[in-house]
Amino acid sequence: MSETTGEPRGVAVGARGHGGDPVLDGRRERGRRTRESILSTAVDIASVEGLEGLTIGRLAAELGMSKSGLFAHFGSKEELQLATIHAAREIFVAEVVEPARAAERGLPRLQALLDAKLDYLRRGVFRGGCFFDAARLEYDSRHPGPVRDAILDEFAGWSKLVTDCVRGAQREGHIDPQADPEQVAFELDAIGTAANLRMQIRKDADGFARAQQAIHDRLAALAA
Amino acid sequence: MSETTGEPRGVAVGARGHGGDPVLDGRRERGRRTRESILSTAVDIASVEGLEGLTIGRLAAELGMSKSGLFAHFGSKEELQLATIHAAREIFVAEVVEPARAAERGLPRLQALLDAKLDYLRRGVFRGGCFFDAARLEYDSRHPGPVRDAILDEFAGWSKLVTDCVRGAQREGHIDPQADPEQVAFELDAIGTAANLRMQIRKDADGFARAQQAIHDRLAALAA
Repeated sequence: MSETTGEPRGVAVGARGHGGDPVLDGRRERGRRTRESILSTAVDIASVEGLEGLTIGRLAAELGMSKSGLFAHFGSKEELQLATIHAAREIFVAEVVEPARAAERGLPRLQALLDAKLDYLRRGVFRGGCFFDAARLEYDSRHPGPVRDAILDEFAGWSKLVTDCVRGAQREGHIDPQADPEQVAFELDAIGTAANLRMQIRKDADGFARAQQAIHDRLAALAA
Repeated sequence: MSETTGEPRGVAVGARGHGGDPVLDGRRERGRRTRESILSTAVDIASVEGLEGLTIGRLAAELGMSKSGLFAHFGSKEELQLATIHAAREIFVAEVVEPARAAERGLPRLQALLDAKLDYLRRGVFRGGCFFDAARLEYDSRHPGPVRDAILDEFAGWSKLVTDCVRGAQREGHIDPQADPEQVAFELDAIGTAANLRMQIRKDADGFARAQQAIHDRLAALAA
């Protein structure tokens, strides 16, 4: 199907008709929606059972679709896994990154980013907690290949974003310019990861209050 | 086999003969050693592939043993998983908890505990990084039952140990008596967990230097 070629994105942009055949456009649109709904389920399954548990068969059973129908959208398990990572990224960007962009530069934006991340964890945006933390641990010591590389890229992108926000807060004169931005980003992100782990295993929302407190204290200690 | 009853421990203590039948004692000793060697392999497999991936068949293949031979030691996958968690705990206690006990009370003991934990991660005591972090994420949103409960117990025990060491440092007048010991323990432990995740996915030992620095800074800020 032509609509499955191109970038493996959960939310395709610019997929509208170009004044061409309206029947073909309608089919494309339906194909796009089907793909989105498949990926939304795939993201939830993977957040709970891991990306390795995300087989075409498992997904077909959950969706009540045929395996051959799914194969038409994703030619292989690996393609499905990569598309799922991209779909999870789109959700994460919409839920965490975009809201933070609306905040003022500097410390407000850094604080908004960290708050949005905790809020995304607290609300359980993915059925199994943070999709990316789960993927990181699943692909830690094994499975080299494109799926692992994609997870690594997502993690590097997130780390860079937090570090850039720390640098932004330094540039605006909001936090200590002497602090090592990568070190600060590491510590702030560590707190969110720990809260997620605690929440997942103990269903203990206290972790979020602790994380919020820890982030607040850390930023207060760094205030310029 | 009688030597498999009793506590599912990797390193049995007091399993020596009681002046009974020397042939029977010899058999018991061999059984105990076999069990230990099986569990040592099981711990490594589970640290990489997860406890769910630890099937009798998978373990038999790695050890070159028959499945029925393994079933004689562990009657079910669940029994094997529980025994593996206990074996991992014994290793963790020997590698992390015991060395810290040798340090002086208060801040030195807390610091020794955190250093030993980072050192255990850095040395890769388990093939796949921290056995318990991996298990926590694997059993997060799913699989209620005795295996999940055992992981929860281990995590609660570790959290309590770190919190007790923080309280000890407060009692000795080494760190701020006003600090909330559970909050401090949460933050200190979060740093180690984050370093482990980074190390596993990126093979990036920088995480340990960052973690060491973060723990040092956090404790210095709390110094009484």
